This record gives sequence, C-alpha cells and structure tokens, in this order.
Amino acid sequence: MTPEQFSEQISEHHSDRTADRTVDAIVIGLGPGGEDLAARLAGGGWRVLGVEAHLVGGECPYYGCIPSKMMLHESRRGHPDWHRVATRIRAEATDHWDDRVAVERLTDAGVTFLRGHAEIQGGTAGSADQAGAAGKAGLAVGASVTVTPEGGSPQLWTARRAVVLNTGSAPVLAPVPGLPERAAWTHRDVVTAETLPDSLAIVGGGPVACELAQALAGFGVRVTVLVRGGRLLSGEVPEAGDLVAERFRSEGIDVRTHTEITEVSEADATRYESSHGLPTPSGPVDVALSTGDRIHVDRVLLATGRAPRDEVRVDEWCRVLDAAGDPVPGRYALGDMTGAGPFTHTSVAQSAVVAGQLLGANHGVGARPYPRNAVPRVTYTNPEVAAVGLSEDAARADAASAGGQDRGAGGEGRGSDGVRVARVDLASSSRGWIDEVAGHLTLVARGGGPDGGLVLVGATVVGPGAGEILGALTVAVHARVPVAELARIPWAYPTLHRAIGDALGKLSQGA
Amino acid sequence: MTPEQFSEQISEHHSDRTADRTVDAIVIGLGPGGEDLAARLAGGGWRVLGVEAHLVGGECPYYGCIPSKMMLHESRRGHPDWHRVATRIRAEATDHWDDRVAVERLTDAGVTFLRGHAEIQGGTAGSADQAGAAGKAGLAVGASVTVTPEGGSPQLWTARRAVVLNTGSAPVLAPVPGLPERAAWTHRDVVTAETLPDSLAIVGGGPVACELAQALAGFGVRVTVLVRGGRLLSGEVPEAGDLVAERFRSEGIDVRTHTEITEVSEADATRYESSHGLPTPSGPVDVALSTGDRIHVDRVLLATGRAPRDEVRVDEWCRVLDAAGDPVPGRYALGDMTGAGPFTHTSVAQSAVVAGQLLGANHGVGARPYPRNAVPRVTYTNPEVAAVGLSEDAARADAASAGGQDRGAGGEGRGSDGVRVARVDLASSSRGWIDEVAGHLTLVARGGGPDGGLVLVGATVVGPGAGEILGALTVAVHARVPVAELARIPWAYPTLHRAIGDALGKLSQGA
Repeated sequence: MTPEQFSEQISEHHSDRTADRTVDAIVIGLGPGGEDLAARLAGGGWRVLGVEAHLVGGECPYYGCIPSKMMLHESRRGHPDWHRVATRIRAEATDHWDDRVAVERLTDAGVTFLRGHAEIQGGTAGSADQAGAAGKAGLAVGASVTVTPEGGSPQLWTARRAVVLNTGSAPVLAPVPGLPERAAWTHRDVVTAETLPDSLAIVGGGPVACELAQALAGFGVRVTVLVRGGRLLSGEVPEAGDLVAERFRSEGIDVRTHTEITEVSEADATRYESSHGLPTPSGPVDVALSTGDRIHVDRVLLATGRAPRDEVRVDEWCRVLDAAGDPVPGRYALGDMTGAGPFTHTSVAQSAVVAGQLLGANHGVGARPYPRNAVPRVTYTNPEVAAVGLSEDAARADAASAGGQDRGAGGEGRGSDGVRVARVDLASSSRGWIDEVAGHLTLVARGGGPDGGLVLVGATVVGPGAGEILGALTVAVHARVPVAELARIPWAYPTLHRAIGDALGKLSQGA
Repeated sequence: MTPEQFSEQISEHHSDRTADRTVDAIVIGLGPGGEDLAARLAGGGWRVLGVEAHLVGGECPYYGCIPSKMMLHESRRGHPDWHRVATRIRAEATDHWDDRVAVERLTDAGVTFLRGHAEIQGGTAGSADQAGAAGKAGLAVGASVTVTPEGGSPQLWTARRAVVLNTGSAPVLAPVPGLPERAAWTHRDVVTAETLPDSLAIVGGGPVACELAQALAGFGVRVTVLVRGGRLLSGEVPEAGDLVAERFRSEGIDVRTHTEITEVSEADATRYESSHGLPTPSGPVDVALSTGDRIHVDRVLLATGRAPRDEVRVDEWCRVLDAAGDPVPGRYALGDMTGAGPFTHTSVAQSAVVAGQLLGANHGVGARPYPRNAVPRVTYTNPEVAAVGLSEDAARADAASAGGQDRGAGGEGRGSDGVRVARVDLASSSRGWIDEVAGHLTLVARGGGPDGGLVLVGATVVGPGAGEILGALTVAVHARVPVAELARIPWAYPTLHRAIGDALGKLSQGA
C-alpha cells in the first residue's frame, strides 16, 4: 500500500470525524525531534498537525548548535572576522531567524502547521498524568487538544492515535542583583549580535558557557568566566574541565572558579576605554564578586543552563508515564523534556523510536527502544570534550542498585562492584606525541557483557578531534561489543584513537 | 605460576640442551611486530633469541610513520621550519638512527639479541615450505637456525618451540635511465636530510609519495608528482585520489598523471638558481617525461612502493603454510611479508595472535585468528584518506566466490550479489557544511550479518579528521555490528561522523 492509498483508507474509514480538525497525530512543539517525527508520520500516510509557538526546527539551528559552531569555526581561522560570521549566521544559517523554509518543508511533507500554543484537554501539554480516562482506555482515540494560533481564537483539535510532546527547554536565569537589562545577555544575544562588546563576563561553566567563551575570545573579546563550582564542565570527568581551563587561561580567558556575582552596578562609562579605540557601545558595568574582587565588563552573559518547559516521565519507548508509572496510551514525548539528554541527536533518535512504534518496520524505522545508556555528547571547545554513556560514578551507582548480581569482572577490578576504569594520556600514543597533543581518554567498563566478560558502559575523550574519536566508543558502548573483541582490533597506526587500544589493554590487566 | 617460575621450570626440564644456543623461540627480524612478539614471549617466561640486521623497531620509527608524521605536523604549523623538524627527528624520534634504547628495552624484557642475519637450516628464513621433516612432526622442536652476527662467525641456534619470521619489505626501485645517484632519493634520504632541495620530482602516487609531497611542499619545496596511472592513491576509491589531487594543485603541487620518466640527464647547474638565494646543494637534473614535457629538478624521489624481502603464505593464525597449504609446525610469520597489509598496526596485531597461541589466554592475549577483513589504513594527507575492510569491487568478488548463498539483502541492493554501497558528501552533514569541508564517506555492506540482515564489510572516509572518523567504522566492520543496530545510534550532533548515520539510512533504503 502506498502512503497515499493508506491515507485514503483512513479518510474513508473515518468519514464521520469533524472534517478538518481530526487528525491521526498532533505534535506539540517542533524542535528537531518534533519536526522530524511530524514529517515521518506524514510520510507514513498519517494526517498530522504540528504546532510550534516560536521557530520550526527549535533552538539548535537558530540559536544553538549551528550558529555556535559557525562562530567557533570562524574564530579558529587565520583572521577571525565577526562581521563575516554574523552575516553567515543571518544569510546561510537562520535566514534572519525566519523559519519559512522549515515550515514549507513540513507542509510539503503533508503536515498541517499552526503557529501558536497547544494544550491537551484535561491538563496542560506537559502534565500528561492528568490525561482523561478516555485516553487511558486504549489508543488516544479522541484525545482533544486546544490549539490557539498566533493572533487567533482557540480551536479544538482531535488526535485519533497519538499526541506527541516536544516542548523543549528554556534558559534558567537566576536574577543578578542590580544587573541592568541592556547589559544582560543570553546566548541569543550573542548569536544575534551585529557587533561584539569589548569585554564580557560569562556566568556559568557548562558546555554553552565554554563554547561561547572560547569563540568570543577568538574574536578579541576580553572574556571572564565566573563559575560557582570548582571547575568548568562539572558534568564530565574532573580532568576535562581542568584541561579546558588550562587552555582557556593560555588564551587569555580569565577563568574564576568558586565565584559568584554578588552585585552589579552601572559604572562610569567615561572611565573605560574600548580596546579598539572605539566608543564602548553601551556603558560598562561594575561587577562585585563573592571573592571580594570587582571586574568591569560591557556585558554579562547568563549561561547557567536550561530546564524543561514541561516535565514528563517517559519509558525507553518514549511513552509518557502517569503518576503510577504506567504508559498513557497514545501519549509520547521527545527531547529535552524527557531528561534523556538535551541534545539534538537525542531528540531525533527518539523520533525514530516513536515513528517505529507508530508506523511499523515497513517504513525503514524498526520499533526499538531508545538506547538511553549510550547517549554521546560533545563540547566543541579546543580541546574538545566528548563523552558517551555512563560516568564512573554512574556506573558504580548502577552496579550497586543491580545488587552486584552481574559482577562478571571476577574481582580483578578497581572496585568490588565489577566496575573498572582505565585512563591513558593521548600524549602517550605515538600520534599524540608526534602532534604534541594534550588530552586523555577514559574508559569505564563492567562485567556482564554478551560474552560474560567486560563491556564498555562509558567513555570520555578530551583533546583535539575528541568528538570524532568518540564515534568508535559510541559504537562500542551502544552495541555492547565485548572488551575482549575490541582488544583485538588493529586500530590504524598512528591515529589518536589508537589510544583506545592502550586503554583496553589496561582494562584487561585490571589496571 | 609467575613468569620466573615458569622459566625455571623450563630450565630444569631441558637441562640437557646446548647451554647457550637453545631457546624456546627465535624471532628473525625485529620490526614492530617482531620486537613486540619477542618481548611478549620473554614476558611469558620463554627463552627468546631476537635477530635483526638493521635497526630494532624497523622502518616505522626510524624512516616511516613517525618521521613522516612529524614532517606533516611541522609543515602545518604557522611557520614551518625544516631545521626544527629535522632536529626533532634526530633528537626525539630516532636518536640519530641509533636503536640502543630499543635494544635495551628488548634485553631488559629478557630477550637475547643478536645483530646480524639468520637462516633457517634446510632453507632460507623465507622459504618456510622447505622446512625439514622433523619440524613437520609436531612443534618445531630442534628447529635449527644459523645466525651470523655482524662481523662475527656463523652460530647454530636451536628453537625448541617456534621460529617467527618478520623480515619485512624493501623499496621497489625501477631503474631510471640516466638518473645520477646523487640526485636519486628514497624516503630515507628525505627523512635524514638536513637541508631540503628547492625542487623535487616524486615518482609514484601511493600513500608515501602523497604524504611526502604535501609535507615537502609545506616547507616551500617545488614538488612535481609523476604518476604512471590515472590518479593518486589508486588503491582507494577513485574519488579519494581525485580530491587529494585537487587539494595538491591548490597548494601548488604539480600533479601529473599518466606520466613516466623516459630519461634523466645532468643539467647545467649554473642555469638554475635556488629560490632561497643559496647555492643549489647539488646540480639539478633535466627530466624528460613520457608526455614529451621536460622538467628541471634538484632531486628525484623514488616512491614506487615496497615488496616483501621474503615471501610466505600464512593462515589467519599467522602460521606459515607449506606448498600443500598445510601449516609448518612451530613456524609463524608477521608483518609485510604476510601480505595482510604493510602496516605497523597489522604486524603488532599479528604479534598478539601468535602470542595468544603460544602463551595462552593467561597472558592477557586470547588465542584468536587475525581479522584479515577489517584492516584499517590511513594516508595522512590533508584531506586524510582512511579506509577499512573491503572495497566495493573486493566485496563483489568475495560475494561472487561465495556463490551468492547469503544474498541476505533481498534484491533491493544495487547488485544482484547482495552488495550495497552508499556514499554521502561530508558537506551535506551539518558539521561539514558549517566547517565548509570537502570530503565524503562511502559504506560497503552485504547481507548475511549476525541478525541475517546487512552488515558493513568496508568503508572509506576522505576529509579532515578522516583517520579518527574511521575508528567508528573499524569497530563496526570488525565486530560485525548489524546495520540495523548501527542505524539506531544517536551519533553526537554536530560531529562529522554523523555522516555515518546518513549513509546507513541510504543503505537501508537500498540507495
């Protein structure tokens, strides 16, 4: 049956529905995963309504991954030129923050699109555990969604089969006492800036803070990074943040740990002179720090993380769970709101999982659960920080909660829980030594692999090209390739990723 | 039992042997694999004699991989300085081509070392199929080897358990009519040069020719590459050599295909002046080409490949086979002479295979066959050219010889043999587009995987960082991870290796 025939069959079978406002699925929020799923379902012959309040495609192409990587790319060229990258972000990447092309792609795929807000009847889009009893009886036949198009009146829509939530996340901005609005920036202000300030304090030490710090420093901005905790990139192995901080300092970035802003006041603009000899675009501010120091900067960039707009719990099939932990029939969620990792690749992979369940394997996407333990992530600083799967601590917690019943490693490991960790310096590999590379690679393994032996459950790589080296470790963790099998691989000499072989050797020796 | 106890036991049991010249194993040739194996066996408690005529460690550290990658690294820095890299090659990499440290490492590991030549009694080291009848009866008990130390008299040694051949390869240098010796260079002359010529013609278009061409051009040498065939890197997918040639030309390297030298004559040195204003170190030569053109260069570098010094056939356990195809007991071979791929990583991986057989799994190296179909290889030009496993042609030949009995792909593929190929441009991935990358990724798959579906049998990546991207494909091909499983991986966004996901999608769709 072609998608068209399938679609006709649905139309014939359900001729009694409210003509235009009954569809097979409603996708609320069209970030990378929602957009992908809406198009996939429409491609499978489903009638689909997609609703998005802001831009189709979400944060990633307009304000996130793409523009930030363009900045980093430009900042590493011989003569970095902000005007050139700002123009490229406008003309090539975001179409001046206009999603017309994305909307057309969606409607060309057969999706009905409405710009506006949506609310599931009997609860908000996010509070899926309040779904009505009708929805729990089987598929979401008749699930009602109120859609309020931009500038229009509320409309009642019905989803016969599925309601998919993809409402994303928003920045968490703690108030900074005294910070004037014109001096307060978020990442969106950086991405849309036509000119850069001379100086900038960044509050936060996570991936976004670090990428923007290095990119802007590359364009000559004097950057100060203020981190509440003890190091940058606190979500990764400690050595990662330490190495990035070392590099940042060598590039003139002022990294201050254990430091918070206590108060900001307007400074006397005449006291400060632009390093370019041009007048400072707007008056600088005087920032008092918890350490007692004061710094003077043009802008304060708040990069203190993001939180889901709506919170849901999902299972590995991306089915929304109710308060009792049971799946709400016909209700799915993707992306940041699921807590599976705030990444574009997570959301898109979850879309494939939902599409597989809804459309079946005939559409090229098998119905399989989302591999939650093998999520990769990369911070694109120099050095890059790339990780996949579980950290050592998470693996130990996981082993402890499993009651030690699969302690396959036989007591040779570093702990009694069968978890083993091996670390090698990239500089100890031939290529690392030749290229004078600073960086390291850490593997986390435990017993209970497919062959009864060790299997990798996580890995971190820090160094140049770490994001690409991570590919090999992503396959190994995802596909649970036994360590004994990985150890036989004749990794190409002299690549940096040959360090994986050295680390595997250490793991096998119980180092 | 500790290695020491094991060694003592052997000594007690065989106290009747000729005291000093009976050992458990003799390793003839100490390139990367031979050196590694000799140390592994000694570490396992064996008495081992290692024999090497030239330098312990072989071509790779002294004249191959390491110095060439150092040149490439230096040539890509801001202000490449030949003196700096020439000094580094002397001081750090080769200890002025002195292997004292390697020899000490070997003897410290317990290996008896002799510099000289070795010949197996009843045949040369390489002609293993002439091994005596005693050797065929079981293990190589009593296999006799004549060792002629440098400047000494021949000695008769006995290997109780194994003779391992690792005699390597030597350059194949076709004679060039009229080429004076002082103008003829091999890669060793480049590696040992204290100053560079102003101009150089390179005969050959393989990995060594390409790497040296780009490295030397980076130091300002005018380089002409003369290739007999139609393209560079003829062992890889055609697009690889084409892209490298395009890049070479943009860097001012003169690449001439379908071109051979017909004759060389001494040119009048006074006619040519060094571009650096210094006298040309030796007179230039006048090179007549098969195209009718003439070029004038200071040196002619012959980089037309290598051939094994001795030829042997081995099985996947690295056991030497006799003329009937049966393993010669106690006889093994490693490295270039086995035809498994002239790479350091091949030879070292083969060492682990032999050590696994001889020492058993208690020594951390399981006894498993050498995975011949998943050998990776990288040419470190910019763009890098990286490949693993079978080419499309080899996969088709392989499928044809298998009689098509596992055509699992079900007729959707490009051929009736179940082999499928998918190619994507790296520029079509987000990161490729952001970084304005030229390159591509090709996957070769066929049916009959562990899940009955498609499995990757080969892959090629051309582009920046291709060698590191290859890591993921090396794991996939080596471990035979099903394509359906690989397709579920949420590759980190936006890495270049996400292109693997795009290519897998094309494969699954039968593109």
